[in-house]
Amino acid sequence: MNHLVNDIEVIKSKATKIHDVDFDNLAFGKVYTDHMLECNFKNGKWEEPKVVPYQPIILDPSAKIFHYGQSVFEGMKAYKDNNDDVWLFRPVDNFKRLNISSKRLAMPELPEAYFMEGLKTLLQVDKDWIPKKEGSSLYVRPFVFASGKGFHASPADEYKFIIACAPSGAYFAGKIKVLIEEKYSRSANGGVGYAKAGGNYAGQFYPTQLAIEKGYNQVIWTDDVNHENIEEAGAMNIFIRINDTLITAPTSDRILDGITRKSIIAIAEDKGIPVEVRTIKVHEVVEAAKNGSLKEMFGAGTAAVVSPISGFGYKDKDFSLPELENNYASYLKKRITDIQTNKAEDPFGWRYKV
Amino acid sequence: MNHLVNDIEVIKSKATKIHDVDFDNLAFGKVYTDHMLECNFKNGKWEEPKVVPYQPIILDPSAKIFHYGQSVFEGMKAYKDNNDDVWLFRPVDNFKRLNISSKRLAMPELPEAYFMEGLKTLLQVDKDWIPKKEGSSLYVRPFVFASGKGFHASPADEYKFIIACAPSGAYFAGKIKVLIEEKYSRSANGGVGYAKAGGNYAGQFYPTQLAIEKGYNQVIWTDDVNHENIEEAGAMNIFIRINDTLITAPTSDRILDGITRKSIIAIAEDKGIPVEVRTIKVHEVVEAAKNGSLKEMFGAGTAAVVSPISGFGYKDKDFSLPELENNYASYLKKRITDIQTNKAEDPFGWRYKV
Repeated sequence: MNHLVNDIEVIKSKATKIHDVDFDNLAFGKVYTDHMLECNFKNGKWEEPKVVPYQPIILDPSAKIFHYGQSVFEGMKAYKDNNDDVWLFRPVDNFKRLNISSKRLAMPELPEAYFMEGLKTLLQVDKDWIPKKEGSSLYVRPFVFASGKGFHASPADEYKFIIACAPSGAYFAGKIKVLIEEKYSRSANGGVGYAKAGGNYAGQFYPTQLAIEKGYNQVIWTDDVNHENIEEAGAMNIFIRINDTLITAPTSDRILDGITRKSIIAIAEDKGIPVEVRTIKVHEVVEAAKNGSLKEMFGAGTAAVVSPISGFGYKDKDFSLPELENNYASYLKKRITDIQTNKAEDPFGWRYKV
Repeated sequence: MNHLVNDIEVIKSKATKIHDVDFDNLAFGKVYTDHMLECNFKNGKWEEPKVVPYQPIILDPSAKIFHYGQSVFEGMKAYKDNNDDVWLFRPVDNFKRLNISSKRLAMPELPEAYFMEGLKTLLQVDKDWIPKKEGSSLYVRPFVFASGKGFHASPADEYKFIIACAPSGAYFAGKIKVLIEEKYSRSANGGVGYAKAGGNYAGQFYPTQLAIEKGYNQVIWTDDVNHENIEEAGAMNIFIRINDTLITAPTSDRILDGITRKSIIAIAEDKGIPVEVRTIKVHEVVEAAKNGSLKEMFGAGTAAVVSPISGFGYKDKDFSLPELENNYASYLKKRITDIQTNKAEDPFGWRYKV
């Protein structure tokens, strides 16, 4: 039966898949809930979003998503606390960034109410799918792509905005080893690196495969001119601790403005940790590793939250990081997840009740 | 009824849409033939391709094409001569480049026989759709994309290779005006600019829209560091004639190795036109425009063939190109299309009979 929730039409699934899911052993992003939000852009405007049963997407072979890469996405997590209240983390920032990404790819921007009310309604309908187990969450994937037709390299005239959800465990298991890239690049000056555009990810897969073959988990991207500056890790921003100072690269047209990144900066500053947002030279990190002042490196992103790095490779040499007892990564990870999961006060006003 | 053509299974469409098509007034890439080639990559290998009725593609919302931009394509044209023989132009080069693109995006490479036999079979089945009118052709679009599932930024485990065809007229109507880009960029050193990756196109749409709003048709991309060097036009490579010398930029990891580009170079050299493949500075083109030595500019690509440029904009100034009677663009366009359409000898061995 169809009904309205928050003014959003809901078409309920006739059956549930929830009993097939082992919530104690969740992989990342591999099983999907019973419903999804769907919203279509046609004739120059967004139609009203609907919650519908999770279902296949049917597209003409000429749909521009297959040819010209017009696709953007966001990543968010929903948490359920001990009172079964549901929480999101800074969701309006995801909404804003989705539109920033869309604009750069010549895709139509979404109205805030369609995103936010659609998101809340979907989470209410699929509330039972939100894991409570520590380290697990409901990964929420809003995405927009070109569904309009044509073998002409120009923006599509039709788009789809979907939100799909996947109860998920950890993105990385344990600490990761990274390779500082010397040949390949993720993004260009004046390019789309700051957007969460699909094409930014596909371009990273091959260099990442080469790094994996050498025994690393991820690539640390550097500038495309001389590979002298540390930029980001593709699915994460990068933080580097030299002595007691926490350093991260400034955002730019090449580097994603990560929501976890800026939250980590705020938490660290609130704690009195010296934070520097500035260009990080590769040689500076290598020198610091050699002289012992390099204390920590970690990635920060929605999927991986805070992902400690055990060591890095550069120019065929491996550098190990020390195991510190009172490390920043553990503190920052606990602090941000406690806020996200309603286990601690939220002095920043980031938590958002669904 | 299913049957085999060139060892490829053919499932024929029950009806034809051909009588709805106005072959005298064809747009570019907007109507599609009755059949398509379909080939799936599953369990680590490509399954045998089939010709099937042109039909929608059905995908899970978590299919990686929607999220991580794993998609590559090719553009080709099929021509029918006065004897109703069907011709392609250097199709093995398209096959090779498709695999080069796929490799860079961590996608599986196709066997040559699946591409070539599949292509020929499809063209035989849809032969009636190939226009004979001058300036028209059957635009052929092979593409590969990630159909495998998962909200994890890593290569998909399943892919689809499709060839779809669209009887098409001219890509551009008449001469075009271009804007030399000073802010945005198409590709990075060490990036995917040399691949025909979907994401390379989406990133160009917004800057191109801005150029169109200023009265231009296309952007001429420059290097992402200082915007000092002319690179390509996104859907075309660029040729510049200064006095009697024809100049084009060398291919690189940022610039597509265009099949029309290299054919134009060969035809020009064969004709005795001095050709230089070298870095072209923006200031050199501006100077040449000012002192009258800039004689021609044109784009070269499969869709647009040879597309003459009437003028360019740079730093808020417009520069016009002269109207030359015996211009290279007209000669080269006629020479290449005469070879493509079997109206002239083919000393290069480029034409390929289907």
